[in-house]
Amino acid sequence: MPPDSKPTGLVVSAHPGDFVWRAAGAIALHVKKGYRVKIVCLAYGERGESQWAWKKAGVTMAEVKAQRHAEAQRAAEVLGAEIEFFDAGDYPLKLTEAMLDRLVDIYREVKPSFVLTHALEDPYNGDHPEAARFAQEARVIAQAAGHKPDPERSYAAPPVFLFEPHQPEQCNFKPNVILNIDEVWETKRKAFEVLAAQKHLWEYYTRVALNRGMQGGRNSGRAMTYGEAYQRLFPTILDELK
Amino acid sequence: MPPDSKPTGLVVSAHPGDFVWRAAGAIALHVKKGYRVKIVCLAYGERGESQWAWKKAGVTMAEVKAQRHAEAQRAAEVLGAEIEFFDAGDYPLKLTEAMLDRLVDIYREVKPSFVLTHALEDPYNGDHPEAARFAQEARVIAQAAGHKPDPERSYAAPPVFLFEPHQPEQCNFKPNVILNIDEVWETKRKAFEVLAAQKHLWEYYTRVALNRGMQGGRNSGRAMTYGEAYQRLFPTILDELK
Amino acid sequence: MPPDSKPTGLVVSAHPGDFVWRAAGAIALHVKKGYRVKIVCLAYGERGESQWAWKKAGVTMAEVKAQRHAEAQRAAEVLGAEIEFFDAGDYPLKLTEAMLDRLVDIYREVKPSFVLTHALEDPYNGDHPEAARFAQEARVIAQAAGHKPDPERSYAAPPVFLFEPHQPEQCNFKPNVILNIDEVWETKRKAFEVLAAQKHLWEYYTRVALNRGMQGGRNSGRAMTYGEAYQRLFPTILDELK
Amino acid sequence: MPPDSKPTGLVVSAHPGDFVWRAAGAIALHVKKGYRVKIVCLAYGERGESQWAWKKAGVTMAEVKAQRHAEAQRAAEVLGAEIEFFDAGDYPLKLTEAMLDRLVDIYREVKPSFVLTHALEDPYNGDHPEAARFAQEARVIAQAAGHKPDPERSYAAPPVFLFEPHQPEQCNFKPNVILNIDEVWETKRKAFEVLAAQKHLWEYYTRVALNRGMQGGRNSGRAMTYGEAYQRLFPTILDELK
Amino acid sequence: MPPDSKPTGLVVSAHPGDFVWRAAGAIALHVKKGYRVKIVCLAYGERGESQWAWKKAGVTMAEVKAQRHAEAQRAAEVLGAEIEFFDAGDYPLKLTEAMLDRLVDIYREVKPSFVLTHALEDPYNGDHPEAARFAQEARVIAQAAGHKPDPERSYAAPPVFLFEPHQPEQCNFKPNVILNIDEVWETKRKAFEVLAAQKHLWEYYTRVALNRGMQGGRNSGRAMTYGEAYQRLFPTILDELK
Amino acid sequence: MPPDSKPTGLVVSAHPGDFVWRAAGAIALHVKKGYRVKIVCLAYGERGESQWAWKKAGVTMAEVKAQRHAEAQRAAEVLGAEIEFFDAGDYPLKLTEAMLDRLVDIYREVKPSFVLTHALEDPYNGDHPEAARFAQEARVIAQAAGHKPDPERSYAAPPVFLFEPHQPEQCNFKPNVILNIDEVWETKRKAFEVLAAQKHLWEYYTRVALNRGMQGGRNSGRAMTYGEAYQRLFPTILDELK
Repeated sequence: MPPDSKPTGLVVSAHPGDFVWRAAGAIALHVKKGYRVKIVCLAYGERGESQWAWKKAGVTMAEVKAQRHAEAQRAAEVLGAEIEFFDAGDYPLKLTEAMLDRLVDIYREVKPSFVLTHALEDPYNGDHPEAARFAQEARVIAQAAGHKPDPERSYAAPPVFLFEPHQPEQCNFKPNVILNIDEVWETKRKAFEVLAAQKHLWEYYTRVALNRGMQGGRNSGRAMTYGEAYQRLFPTILDELK
Repeated sequence: MPPDSKPTGLVVSAHPGDFVWRAAGAIALHVKKGYRVKIVCLAYGERGESQWAWKKAGVTMAEVKAQRHAEAQRAAEVLGAEIEFFDAGDYPLKLTEAMLDRLVDIYREVKPSFVLTHALEDPYNGDHPEAARFAQEARVIAQAAGHKPDPERSYAAPPVFLFEPHQPEQCNFKPNVILNIDEVWETKRKAFEVLAAQKHLWEYYTRVALNRGMQGGRNSGRAMTYGEAYQRLFPTILDELK
Repeated sequence: MPPDSKPTGLVVSAHPGDFVWRAAGAIALHVKKGYRVKIVCLAYGERGESQWAWKKAGVTMAEVKAQRHAEAQRAAEVLGAEIEFFDAGDYPLKLTEAMLDRLVDIYREVKPSFVLTHALEDPYNGDHPEAARFAQEARVIAQAAGHKPDPERSYAAPPVFLFEPHQPEQCNFKPNVILNIDEVWETKRKAFEVLAAQKHLWEYYTRVALNRGMQGGRNSGRAMTYGEAYQRLFPTILDELK
Repeated sequence: MPPDSKPTGLVVSAHPGDFVWRAAGAIALHVKKGYRVKIVCLAYGERGESQWAWKKAGVTMAEVKAQRHAEAQRAAEVLGAEIEFFDAGDYPLKLTEAMLDRLVDIYREVKPSFVLTHALEDPYNGDHPEAARFAQEARVIAQAAGHKPDPERSYAAPPVFLFEPHQPEQCNFKPNVILNIDEVWETKRKAFEVLAAQKHLWEYYTRVALNRGMQGGRNSGRAMTYGEAYQRLFPTILDELK
Repeated sequence: MPPDSKPTGLVVSAHPGDFVWRAAGAIALHVKKGYRVKIVCLAYGERGESQWAWKKAGVTMAEVKAQRHAEAQRAAEVLGAEIEFFDAGDYPLKLTEAMLDRLVDIYREVKPSFVLTHALEDPYNGDHPEAARFAQEARVIAQAAGHKPDPERSYAAPPVFLFEPHQPEQCNFKPNVILNIDEVWETKRKAFEVLAAQKHLWEYYTRVALNRGMQGGRNSGRAMTYGEAYQRLFPTILDELK
Repeated sequence: MPPDSKPTGLVVSAHPGDFVWRAAGAIALHVKKGYRVKIVCLAYGERGESQWAWKKAGVTMAEVKAQRHAEAQRAAEVLGAEIEFFDAGDYPLKLTEAMLDRLVDIYREVKPSFVLTHALEDPYNGDHPEAARFAQEARVIAQAAGHKPDPERSYAAPPVFLFEPHQPEQCNFKPNVILNIDEVWETKRKAFEVLAAQKHLWEYYTRVALNRGMQGGRNSGRAMTYGEAYQRLFPTILDELK
């Protein structure tokens, strides 16, 4: 079986914390099912998501970025995923044409059967909707026959699942999918623990997972404990209603 | 295998035309897959959906209702579904406590794995949202342990799919599911033809099916010709993102 | 020219104040253009809209209703409109099947080319959305061939315009029509003055008219001073874009 | 100081669980601040919220209702609040004119400075929005000068705060207030424990309180641990922006 | 009569296909009524809308653009409209300050009585909302007295009509205008046929026109066969309600 | 008491008129209460808001800007506020990275307890939502530990209040706060009169203030005459419900 015959998933994350808190369950679950999962981490969260690092006297930007790079790398390893860093700068993200071009190439190379990214609105963090806009733009350009034309290429734009923001109602996030992550919960929790400086968020997002799990049980009548909520953007095409 | 081990579906339709134009594909498809599908037809559309019948001089209400009853029965037969009539009266529907009680019993007896009903708003036809409200109310009451208590009973409230109204945008209907009905299209079309007096709608809803089919193809990258659009109301619980 | 060849308009108002503050401009304007305009006033506002009347010691409900009846009658006369009272009781409206039947008959008799009624939501006054719901229900039933069948009858459901509530944003009211009422402003103001006990509202709704007028000027580039805002519910069918 | 010079609050709850899970923090907090708080409990949740009770062979409706009555009474005592039961029946609520009249009297007698009730939508439980609609209708009728006229009466409709439903996004619930309940958390937790059969919900709603608390801290920059989320329906009138 | 005394219309289209599928009826209809209609075609759709062209081995970008230019030119001729190309590049559109300046000049020169452009959202094609944003920005700047000041100039910002996107509900497109295009349907169809490579869309958009036509008939009670749906953005100022 | 121990407010206004018509009441009120209030005026409105100035033959851009600068300065003085001009250019605003950096510094220096800015949408004026976006972006970046790191710094992002646009419903503006500005109304009116060329707006916004005042009275049961409406963006954290 050639390597690229594996099913694949793509995650476009503004900062390292995002793919860990919001999507680590989906990543670990699909890896466990045999998917190749690739994370594109647009920035290191070096300015807006690294308060503890800046408390050290004399620390430099390069040091903070290196620290967050290492952390994100370890978290991806825990989850079994590949990761590529765009180093776009955060607060705000500074996404260039070259980065867009690179992300289009990644879509075409990975041919993901799903893409995970941020909610479309987030009044607490402008990098999040900007990452979502960028992920969507690249997804569509990858379809364009006249972008780096190649008659051999096959690519179909994948479904998009938005992951849960920190304060879902303030972001007008309305989940229509709850993913059962029971069988990979321990892995998700281990990825949390890589982000050693943010212990308060370990507990916060553990509670989110438990409450989404209970909601999943109520909506399905099936036993489940841990869930991850997503908002699917485009219609699902079904052969049977369920 | 006992007869009730078949998977089942339930359709709550205000008038006969509704289950034909809006849900005949889903009904025929699931029947073909081995489902038992039951239609509850709340009214005969005798006042609001039978213009042609009233053109006959001296026709009575009883005659019009009998005619629509026969038509709906034949359409259900074409689709392979059971049908039960509530004769609630139309324009407006006059739904009673006894009817609610009966629909709760049906939910508990059928144990559907999905329920199909109307969109939640329809400024052109007040019977439609009223039918949807009624279908939802019964679905929830059927869960209540204290309603006709029976410790043996098993019932889990099924997912709800709203079918497409005549003018979807005016009803704030936003489809998130497109069902591929290619393999039962001929059957759906035959059900249309049972409604012999409404030929203009045969063509209208054939065009709807073709356009939803093309949208289904665009959203999935899969070949398909005929579609039926639905709006799923509650989150789907998934073990894999797709 | 037979009397019923005049164009006509219908106004369904919960209480007397409503057609005066919210729609008197439209009424007077169309009367001036030769329309027959009929107002259906569902209740006298005897409980919720007559504070001053209840300050008189020993006043009875019958007296309050008579007083509001007379006031509404005079206001309709000032505007040149017919008025019919349903005396449904206010706070809350108690609308019966007989009243629904009567309103359906009115639609069929008047054959209005437009109907004016309340906004669909109003958290300050439940009678208002109830009146709107009732007006819409009757409008649709009047189309039903099987309701009091009569092959001679001609009736087409008219466009619905919702008039402006007291606090438009809280009612999710979004105007898409501003009616220029400059040529009947004096008449509208005279109708205000019939409601002698509510002087503070004379000024409030004069300011509303002036501000809607300025908005009308900005949206059209045309000079105008007084406006009345409406939300048209159904699509307009046009032969030319304007 | 006369007893009715205390500030007061009113809670309109469909079932006993609702005021405990959703509003016990607000109740205990205002009691602690010296408010008189009155709970109106419309139904006992005897059919829809008492699964465990119905597991006992031969139990009767009267016994289940008595059990839930006692539980709700104890929970109100723990919180320091008064409670009045309407025994309206649940699933669905059967609210009568006499109950509406009684609730109007309560508004006028209590003169609450706030009212707490359910979210306006809840596709999982039709009793919840029905309770909210009823609470709002009574709140407005209580203002009507012509309802049981009494020139001595003083009453101003209080602000309405909607409490958090089980699955907030599915109910289109968007909190705009987070109440800091740190100083009464232990009391809220004790009220949970009165509902002895629903231990899984003790933990669920403890997690909700912790996560709303962290969101409260993020939105205010103030330290806090436990929060209760509310959606305020009407504009706040302020003398200073904060 | 001087040439500029004709009424005029302006169409701002992202790609050639857009003005054909979505607005050809309005263009042909107003041309027939004596309007001067000008189309601004921002890009050739050379990358995203020209799949067939890229199937030819060795084809260059310049050739594809020339081919689409010719096609768009012919379609405009069929419709009787002028066309100006901005050659902004597609997927994504790269709109410059010079292009904005040029579009402002066009607004001032054409003085359109209406402008047609794209829906405000389109998750399938980012060029569409970008074109709409650009058309609106230029429309407002053209009003600014301090932009290329000229006291002789007369210009009033025209009403904006958004044309129907491919999947209207996914774009939150809600039509409030249906234009009757019966008398120019043959011309619209001829413009379709200029886009020779996209035969599947000829049929798709013919079905759209037929279904919008039937909806137009239902909403107006008037006979009509073909319609084009629009969403009017700003309030209409009326002298008579219709 | 050191000068920076005063409470403070920040206003981010696209053009001079905006802070006068929309926020002068809040500015004057908080100044009267002892706040330091700082206005950031992004552009002079030199192109889009200075029609009268451009009527003078031969006037230059520099002259128009100087005139508007003087006017805005005087209005700020009348209100007792500081003002800083960014001279970003209007129609459209051209906001640079340096300006963003400066606004972040201002947030950190002023440490406002509230920030006032524009509504998030405004189809009549693209500068308004752009100003709001910019104000929000800077507000969040000011929190970032890695932006100009300084362990001594204290800053918490303040609540955001959006002020009322010219046509609130068209901007989807829904006020949830009405500020009582009775005690500073004369000052607000004096600030209007500084804008000597826009007398028609003096009256328009006086009517807005009176109508918001009456709405404030209705919502609170308190006497008040003049109001300013705001939409608070983030949840309020409360210790008591009111």
